[in-house]
Amino acid sequence: MQAAIDEARKSLAEGGIPIGSVIVHQGRIIGRGHNRRVQQGSAILHGEMSALEDAGRQPASVYADATLYTTLSPCAMCSGAILLYGIKQVVIGEHHTFLGEEALLQSRGVNLQVLHDATCTGLMRRFIEDHPQLWNEDIGEQSEP
Amino acid sequence: MQAAIDEARKSLAEGGIPIGSVIVHQGRIIGRGHNRRVQQGSAILHGEMSALEDAGRQPASVYADATLYTTLSPCAMCSGAILLYGIKQVVIGEHHTFLGEEALLQSRGVNLQVLHDATCTGLMRRFIEDHPQLWNEDIGEQSEP
Repeated sequence: MQAAIDEARKSLAEGGIPIGSVIVHQGRIIGRGHNRRVQQGSAILHGEMSALEDAGRQPASVYADATLYTTLSPCAMCSGAILLYGIKQVVIGEHHTFLGEEALLQSRGVNLQVLHDATCTGLMRRFIEDHPQLWNEDIGEQSEP
Repeated sequence: MQAAIDEARKSLAEGGIPIGSVIVHQGRIIGRGHNRRVQQGSAILHGEMSALEDAGRQPASVYADATLYTTLSPCAMCSGAILLYGIKQVVIGEHHTFLGEEALLQSRGVNLQVLHDATCTGLMRRFIEDHPQLWNEDIGEQSEP
C-alpha cells in the first residue's frame, strides 16, 4: 500500500487528484499508476486504470493471481475492470471519502480488504475540500453551478 | 452506428480487434474510438474506453444527455465506465458473439437497444475464429495451452 500512496502523492505534486494504485503479482509490482485526469486531460486514467495500463497485456492467469492495491475505494469503471480481468484480491486504503462498487465486487467473489488508512483519507479529504468541482467531475457527479 | 462500424473496420485494417464505438451528444459525435489492444499494447483501450478518452473531460451534464454506440455488447470494464459517467442510452450492434454486462446496466436504469446487426456479428465471428487467443485475452479469459 505504501507504493500506492507514493503514487497518490506523486499525482498531488503534479497538480492532480491524489489516488494511486499498484498491481502485485508473486511479490513483485507489475503495474503502478495514479489518476491522470488533470495531468493528461484523461477521462479514463483513474489510479487503478493507470496501473492496469502500466502492467500492459497480461494473460488471465496473471490477473487471477494478482492483488490490486488502491488508495481509494474503486469506482464503477475501475471495479468493472477488476471484474473483467478476474482480479480476486483488492486492498483498499479507505472508503470514507468515497464508497465505490464494493458490494458489486463482493457479490462477484472478489476479496476486499479495507485498511481505513488515515494517510489515504487525509489526502482525499483535503483535496475534495480544495477542489470540489474537479472531484465531482472525476466521479461523474454534477457540481452546483 | 455506421460511424462505430467504420471504427471497427479501421481497427481490423490496423491488425486489431474489430470493435468500434462513438459517443453522440446533441446530434454530434463528440468521441470516437476502437479497440487498441494490438495497436498500442493496451489493456484498457476497448472501443468504448477509447471513445470516452477521445471525448475528453466532460461535465456530468454532457454524459447524462449522450448516447454511446458500440458494435459489441459492453464488457464489465466498459459497462462500469458507462455507469460511472451516467450515460443513459447505449446502442449495441450485437451481443451474439459476446454478451457483456447488459443485465447490470439495465438494473441500474441504462436504456439499451440491441440492433442484431449482421455486419457487426460477421466482423467479430471471423475475428474470433482467426484469433481465439487474442480475443480471450481481451475479455480476460484463459486460452487453452
